[in-house]
Parts: sequence; C-alpha cells; structure tokens
Amino acid sequence: MPTQRMTTERMTGRALQPGSATAGAASAFERWLLRILMAALPDAGYSIVLWDGSSAGEDSGVRVLIRDRAALWQVVRDPALHFGDLYSLGRIEVEGDLVTFLERTYAALEAGRSANASPLWRLWSDITPRSRSIDAARDNIEQHYDLGNDFYALWLDRESMQYTCAYFPEAGMPLEAAQRAKMDHVCRKLRLRRGQRVFEAGCGWGGFALHMAREYGVEVHAWNISREQVRFATDRARKAGLGDRVSFIEDDYRNMRGECDAFVSVGMLEHVGPENYRALGAVIDRCLAPNGFGLIHTIGRNRPESMNGWIERRIFPGAQPPSLGEMMALFEPRSFSVLDVENLRLHYAETLRHWMVRYLGAIDQVRATRGAEFARAWQLYLAGSIAAFTTGRMQLFQVLFARDRNNDLPATRRHLYP
Amino acid sequence: MPTQRMTTERMTGRALQPGSATAGAASAFERWLLRILMAALPDAGYSIVLWDGSSAGEDSGVRVLIRDRAALWQVVRDPALHFGDLYSLGRIEVEGDLVTFLERTYAALEAGRSANASPLWRLWSDITPRSRSIDAARDNIEQHYDLGNDFYALWLDRESMQYTCAYFPEAGMPLEAAQRAKMDHVCRKLRLRRGQRVFEAGCGWGGFALHMAREYGVEVHAWNISREQVRFATDRARKAGLGDRVSFIEDDYRNMRGECDAFVSVGMLEHVGPENYRALGAVIDRCLAPNGFGLIHTIGRNRPESMNGWIERRIFPGAQPPSLGEMMALFEPRSFSVLDVENLRLHYAETLRHWMVRYLGAIDQVRATRGAEFARAWQLYLAGSIAAFTTGRMQLFQVLFARDRNNDLPATRRHLYP
Repeated sequence: MPTQRMTTERMTGRALQPGSATAGAASAFERWLLRILMAALPDAGYSIVLWDGSSAGEDSGVRVLIRDRAALWQVVRDPALHFGDLYSLGRIEVEGDLVTFLERTYAALEAGRSANASPLWRLWSDITPRSRSIDAARDNIEQHYDLGNDFYALWLDRESMQYTCAYFPEAGMPLEAAQRAKMDHVCRKLRLRRGQRVFEAGCGWGGFALHMAREYGVEVHAWNISREQVRFATDRARKAGLGDRVSFIEDDYRNMRGECDAFVSVGMLEHVGPENYRALGAVIDRCLAPNGFGLIHTIGRNRPESMNGWIERRIFPGAQPPSLGEMMALFEPRSFSVLDVENLRLHYAETLRHWMVRYLGAIDQVRATRGAEFARAWQLYLAGSIAAFTTGRMQLFQVLFARDRNNDLPATRRHLYP
Repeated sequence: MPTQRMTTERMTGRALQPGSATAGAASAFERWLLRILMAALPDAGYSIVLWDGSSAGEDSGVRVLIRDRAALWQVVRDPALHFGDLYSLGRIEVEGDLVTFLERTYAALEAGRSANASPLWRLWSDITPRSRSIDAARDNIEQHYDLGNDFYALWLDRESMQYTCAYFPEAGMPLEAAQRAKMDHVCRKLRLRRGQRVFEAGCGWGGFALHMAREYGVEVHAWNISREQVRFATDRARKAGLGDRVSFIEDDYRNMRGECDAFVSVGMLEHVGPENYRALGAVIDRCLAPNGFGLIHTIGRNRPESMNGWIERRIFPGAQPPSLGEMMALFEPRSFSVLDVENLRLHYAETLRHWMVRYLGAIDQVRATRGAEFARAWQLYLAGSIAAFTTGRMQLFQVLFARDRNNDLPATRRHLYP
C-alpha cells in the first residue's frame, strides 16, 4: 500500500508536527493573524476558534477549530496546502457540515478575489503542478489509482466502478443507474454502431470499455498507464466473456496507434496537462477515421486555473482541469470541428454525494486499513469536490467533435433523449 | 441605394477594366501563370480556360472561363479579392454548378494548404478586416443592412425576415417553419418565462424580438445600429400591437444598460470582432441578472481566421467569425460558465439553399433595380456561403451560458426536444 506510506510520511513531516507550545493563551499577534485569515474570507458565514477559545468571524453553526499554535502558523502561511494536511491530522477540525463549510469558503474566496479584499487570498490559490512527462505521468497515476482497487470498490458504483461523473437524467436515480446513463449518453453522442472500433484513452477499471462492447457490439482498445487498473480490467473482460472484443493496453496515450471509428476519453484529460493538448490532438488526428466521432469528458474550469495545491499534492498529482479555451488546443491546430459541448457540473456534485454516503458508510474500514489521517484526507477531498461543483469552481465538460469535412451529422440531438 | 453606387464604383474601377489587349492568343507566360494558379488547387476537379481556349486542370463538367488578359493577371495577383469582382463583372464565368465549383475550390485550397502545395495558396487567404470602432461599426453595418429592406424581403423568409441560420429539425421543412423552429430552439435554451425581460443585441428587422414577445410573453429591449432596420422593426411592432412590450433602440451594443433575465444575440458577433469580445462580455456582465441565461448565436470557425477578402470588402465589411477559443474571451474574464454549445453548420447550408432558390427566382428584379454586377455578386456570395458551410470552412455556434453561481439549471437538454 504505497499511499498509506506516502500519507504517513508526508502528513506527519516535521513541518506539521504540533509545536511544543500547544497550550497557553493565544498571543495578541496570533489573534491578529486570525483576523487577517478571516479578512481573506469576507462574509464566510462561520467562525474560526483557536485552541484557547479566542475566535473571529460569525457564529452560525459552523465552527473551524484550530487545535494548536503551529497549526495556526501553518495555515496562515499556505492555507491552500496546509489546511488539508492539518485537517487530515485532526489538528484542524470542522464542527457542522463539512460541505457547507467548504462551499462557504469557496464562495468567500471568490468574493474576496473579486473585491480584492485581502492580499491573503492569493495564499489560497493554486500552485504549479508536477511534471506530466511519460515517466512522471506513470508515477502520478500510480500514486492515485494504484491505491488499491479494493479501496475504490468501497464507495464507487458496484456495477462498473466508474470513477467519473455520472448522469442523472431523473432526480433520485441510484448511482449504478446514473453511471449506466452516463455511459449510454456518451455512446449515443458518439453514435456507436455494431462492428465499429473504439479507442479509449484512460479507461479506469475498464467498466466503460466493457459496457460499450456488451451493449453496442463494438470492438474496444483501451489504453491506461495504471498497472493495477489494467490487470483488474483485463481480468474482468475475461470473466465477462468479452476478452475477444476488448483489449486493455498498459501504455501512455502518446503511444496510441491504429485507426478507430470513435475516440473517447472519460476523465483522463484532467491528468494530461495543457502543455500536452496539442500532442493529444495529434494522436487523435492520427487515429480517427474520416467519418469518426470523438468525445472528451473532463473536469473543467471557467477560466485557466491550477488545481488546489493540497489536492494536487496529496490526492491527484499532476491534475489540472482545463478551461474550454484551453481545450481548444486539442482541436484548433487540427482539422476538427466541435459539434456539441455539454456542461454536467451539477451531475458531478450529485455523483460525489453518492460516493460520500458510501464512503462514510465504510470509513471505519478505511480507518482500520489505512489510518485515520488517510480516512480524513479522503473525506475532505470528497467534501471539497462537492463544494467545488456546487459553487461553480469546477465544471464537467463533454465535448463531441468530428473532422471538419464530415457531413454525416445528425440534424438534432434528439437521439440523446430517447 | 448606396450600395448600387458602391458596387458600380468599386467593381468597374480602373484596375479591373478589361485591358486593351483582350483578343489574341495567350502568351507562353500567361499559360504558365494559369498552371501556377491550378497548382495552388490540387485535384480541384475542374478546368480553367483562357480567352483563347488554352486551358489547365481536369475537364469534369465544371469550367472556369477567364474572359480577358487583364482578368488573368488580376486573379493571379489577388484571387481572394479579385475573383469575386471579376465574376461579378462577368469577366470570369463558371460553367456548371457554381456551388460545386466553390466547394471544390475550398476543398482544394484546404488540401493545398495542408500539403503546402504552392506558395500561391496564401493569395487566397484572408485579409485584415476594417475597423470596428463604434463609428466604423455603424458605417460597416449600413453598407450591408441598409441596402434596402425590399432587397432582403425578396429572398428571406416571409414571416420574420431572419437573416440568420434557420433550424431544420425535420428534413424538408419550409424556410418559414425552420426560422420559427430556430427561434423556439433559442427560447427553449434560454428557458424564457412570461414576464421576463430580454435584451437582444443586434436584432435585425426585429422578427425574433416580436416572436419572443408574442409567443413567450416577455418584454424585449433590442439594440441595433442599422437605422433602416430599427425603423422597419419599430413599425412592425406597432402594427402587431406589440409596441408596449418590445422596444427597438438605435444604438451600439457597447451602450446597452439596464438589467435583463436573458441576454441574446443572434448573428451579431460576426460583426463585433475579437478585439471587442472582452468589452461585449463586460456589457453582458453589467446587464445579466444573477440567475439569467445568455445565448450567442454566431457564424464561427474551427480556428482563428479572417474573412475571405472579397466578402469582407464587398459584402460584409468588418465581418470576422470567431473560433470557439476566441469566443471564450467573452466568458473567461467574467463569472460566466458555458453550459451548452451546439454546432448547426449544416443547417446554415440548408438555409442558404432556400435563400438561393428564392434569390434566383427574383434575380431579374435584382438585375433590373441594382444592375447585373450586383446581382452576380450576391449570387456568388450565397453560393460561396453554401460551399463554406458544406465543406466545414464555416461553423454555426449557439453558445448558452449562465453565471458560475447559478444552480437553477435543467438536468438535461430534453426540454429542447418536445
């Protein structure tokens, strides 16, 4: 379990150990720091309380408890990074609903940014992500996806282990049905027909590849650099009797070769990085048949921004969701034409709520096998992701495209709504 | 009739007068020029024939006839500009289907560009458009739209004079029904509700504003800098008994003020120019209510490109259709979130075919009132536009957006397909 080790090493590193002077009253300077921290969060609608009971902000049922002196100093110095670590260690706690706290924080940061309320808001903003060269990409992905399939199986949908945004065309759908609906929505956009060949870039545990082969009668070649996932997916294909129609290839998207009728990528672009979009566009251009369709499903942004530093370092190394404008580097240098963009932001919030319920249901097990810090870190990550989608900090784009000369296009999108 | 004058002056200017040496055999050098011209158009699938019968290219039922020596020199020097003028004057003629000729030309130019077949392809490429300052914009728009309402009434739909892409959800729809379908499609995307206030930027002859007020019970404020159109639209509103619910304002979009529940612009962005997109985004940001929706309907490109020089100079001064990436300058600097992009390219080709049929049906009348050159110029423009949309040189984007914090979003787009 490489990540449990990683978690323990990083989160309890020297810099984040409680200082020796944990007890005792907060000094006047520390109370000033606290007010400065709140000044970056205008109208946040919660209070922050120090170890000695000093507080700032509004008492509204949500309270942030900073348990020791060193935690205050750390979070003031680099809140975007250290809040997550300190929360994971229990040195910062949140009383009241965690998602509500994070939603208010995002909203207050946005308001603070617009109003330029404090130079401190910059501290919450984001960092330069890691290298995404072919070798680095493999390390990045291993750190996240090779956590162990059993960990994700605890809280993802049971049918196809989709670790991407589901689609809830009807309110109250179960997660499993919503993940099937997402896969069918993508397949309809791509107009898959029996006998076609599909290339999938970044295939997770293979659930979508198997769904396409089983339900649409297509041949699927799916690339992934996560060894754990490829092994798991290949095994699943064999057991499902689809081994002859689905092949999983442990390799980087940059090495994709051959010709396909449809090119699909669900939840990979977040890891690719804007500096590689032209290269990915070239790969698609090399592979896609003249009348083929392509679809990229990705977390996105309303404007170019880096990932939150803590998530980028602790959860998703190398991650950087693009703005739509940044995504155009995939298409504009090539002969591609964007046909349809759909933003499914609130569907991701709903997906994450399902994951959170399941995760909290299994948190004792996570704690027992991976430790309390890890369990708290992932709870924070899921809660923060819900808040990011409900407050519009993050988007979910599905972008359908074809070659510019392809006139075999449906007149409307009615076929997506059967 | 300012444009008839314009046409006559510009198109018969000294530079384009037939030279004195019209008769006589083409020289070896002229025949070499002809081959150079064809080299920029690999596999064009037609031939070009000079005044003395010399020809180059493939004999396939489509033949381009260059009637005099000076026309050859002009078209070689600046084909993107002079082809149109020489065609309008009848000094270049096309035997066979004009749209087919233009489709093959666009395809060949694209192939030539990709293959870098000849330095000459650059001559076909496009020019820097004119100024689009507030004053210049008014001149630009007057040159195009103030041609006279009677001219457009000859070939646009009879019900609402929509000079923008229609929507053909069913094959074979009449133009009038398809224009209604387009307006309803936009209104459904905007989720218009009775009593709302709509701002329209660039309202043409007011047909859409009247449709929204009549069919959706909204109050519409519509801006336009074309005096002829505003007069016509105001008169129509009064006659339709909608004068209290629709107001037409003769002013630039940069001067729009007030608050609206929906902001819509159909066919204006082409004239705005990328250098003004941030300013237009600021106008929308100033006007749109917190839970409002906005929609921009515009001709677009797969990548940033200028307009064809002849169209920009003779037909649409200042026009420059944006790529999706360029359009993001409207949204990314502001708190907007793109919700839905639909590309209706082939619907514009179909719209133009309807316009062409009606235009050719009325061409004798055009010729009688505005002269043969004008009649031929507009025939070329309509044919070239059909070819641009069928060959994927031009796109038609509808971009729906909202503020990033607006969570009152429909779960699906099913409501667009009743």
